[in-house]
Amino acid sequence: MSNVYDLIIIGAGPAGMTAAIYAARRKIKFCILSLDVGGQIGWSSEVDNYPGLPDLTGIQLVERFKKHMTDYKIKVNREEIIKVNKAGKLISVKTKKNIYQSKAVLITVGKKPRKLGVPGEEEFLGKGVNYCATCDAPLFRDKTVIVVGGGNSGLEAALFLSKYAKKVYIMEKLPKLNGEKYLKDKLGADKKISIITGAGVKEIKGDKLVNELIYEQEGNQKSLKVDGVFVEIGLITELDFVDVKKNKWKEIMLFRGTKSNNENLTSVPGIFAAGDCTDVPTKQIIVAAGEGAKAALASFDYIDRLK
Amino acid sequence: MSNVYDLIIIGAGPAGMTAAIYAARRKIKFCILSLDVGGQIGWSSEVDNYPGLPDLTGIQLVERFKKHMTDYKIKVNREEIIKVNKAGKLISVKTKKNIYQSKAVLITVGKKPRKLGVPGEEEFLGKGVNYCATCDAPLFRDKTVIVVGGGNSGLEAALFLSKYAKKVYIMEKLPKLNGEKYLKDKLGADKKISIITGAGVKEIKGDKLVNELIYEQEGNQKSLKVDGVFVEIGLITELDFVDVKKNKWKEIMLFRGTKSNNENLTSVPGIFAAGDCTDVPTKQIIVAAGEGAKAALASFDYIDRLK
Repeated sequence: MSNVYDLIIIGAGPAGMTAAIYAARRKIKFCILSLDVGGQIGWSSEVDNYPGLPDLTGIQLVERFKKHMTDYKIKVNREEIIKVNKAGKLISVKTKKNIYQSKAVLITVGKKPRKLGVPGEEEFLGKGVNYCATCDAPLFRDKTVIVVGGGNSGLEAALFLSKYAKKVYIMEKLPKLNGEKYLKDKLGADKKISIITGAGVKEIKGDKLVNELIYEQEGNQKSLKVDGVFVEIGLITELDFVDVKKNKWKEIMLFRGTKSNNENLTSVPGIFAAGDCTDVPTKQIIVAAGEGAKAALASFDYIDRLK
Repeated sequence: MSNVYDLIIIGAGPAGMTAAIYAARRKIKFCILSLDVGGQIGWSSEVDNYPGLPDLTGIQLVERFKKHMTDYKIKVNREEIIKVNKAGKLISVKTKKNIYQSKAVLITVGKKPRKLGVPGEEEFLGKGVNYCATCDAPLFRDKTVIVVGGGNSGLEAALFLSKYAKKVYIMEKLPKLNGEKYLKDKLGADKKISIITGAGVKEIKGDKLVNELIYEQEGNQKSLKVDGVFVEIGLITELDFVDVKKNKWKEIMLFRGTKSNNENLTSVPGIFAAGDCTDVPTKQIIVAAGEGAKAALASFDYIDRLK
């Protein structure tokens, strides 16, 4: 079993990087596989709610995590995962380049925001286009912003933005907003917020930063002057590579055992999961990091008990 | 209701400080009450597993959290809690000096390690006396250490320390070790570890740092040359001030609702809890911080829905 890993961590966002730091401290044989490093942290223009590291860009916070990994000589193998499969006691991880064997696997691949897929969206990412109101609202103090998406997360984003922005639009494709009544009531009572329904985004325009949104309503092309666009049309997981129980949002369902350090279990013994790709309701960097630590400790316990 | 707070956070360890940062960003009316700032973080000589902030003393990490709070103009009110009580829709928080009213309360008072209560324990705290092997083991590379306490946490501490130290003793008052069989098997197989049972610590001695442990066994006073003493005889909660459901370890039991951001509920609506004072099995700084964020977001949701 000399080529067998104790633990393979898949994904290098806050959950995966935290798990890797714990694994290195535990001195087990492990590796971390991911195409990118940083995960959703890197999507954020500003992160000011990771306790102890205020006022960084997402990229800067990723650098802090990377530095911590480097201190422990952790290197992320840039590999694309094809299949994770348990056969007997061991788990095989097939990537485009390799096949690994491991006693335990920890999946921390996070989520990706669903994109609008319109011109300007890529170009102005972090320059007015955002996917996380909780992260980026404070950057838009006294500015005009639009939230695209009229479900719960869109409504919450609009209400939160209204605490900072001078004007908030919320745009929904359908003829009316979705989401919970108490949120819609609040939205209706908020004088800063205007609701635009039956409208679809066509293009995001700007100079160095976003300054205009082009949309279509009842067959007519229209325009809004905005400084920021918050896309809140959902997030997607990419978890087809592993057969564990998932919920209706295709998030990995987590289970808890009866013992201490027996959390973050999936439906397959030896496969653990943590962070935004799981059914943990709160999707925040600090929460994902905490989940990564929990899952790592649970996996150590599993590895220790494995004969 | 102008004197009524939206949220009162009790305790200022990693969970409480994180919740305070989230509350300040949410721009709600809140305060944070605690006799100390930092909680158990301050007990640790070195913290190297808080991702992004490697290689700090516990005190330094507390300073980083404090700085983050200061950026948001958060001040911890140094008050001792007497009673938290729900009366009608509001919750009253009675301290030695004041009575507050709040829509929601978040309890994050953490735990305290049970002390040996022997001479030298206080004096050499952080100078060889430790209460967290996971935190401090790497400081004792190639040193001789003793773990006091032969339950699961003591066994785990001894096994973990054995990865770093050159020699590990484990001492238990009872005639034999407690804890799970697989841990005891591992301990027995580890050549670095010696087991001393039926023995009680009498005194911790040293010069600037710990260098000797005096103990009694079968009526005889004995001595061991050690560089570090890890006290693993359990942790205690101080939660008599609030009537919510607790488990057999007197930890606050957490419940989860069916909706998103509906976690960290206690048995009393409006009272939330997070961190080591709860039944969350993993007791780590990064986990407590994540729990603080979850509980804060859950409390905001509760406050928003409250008429």
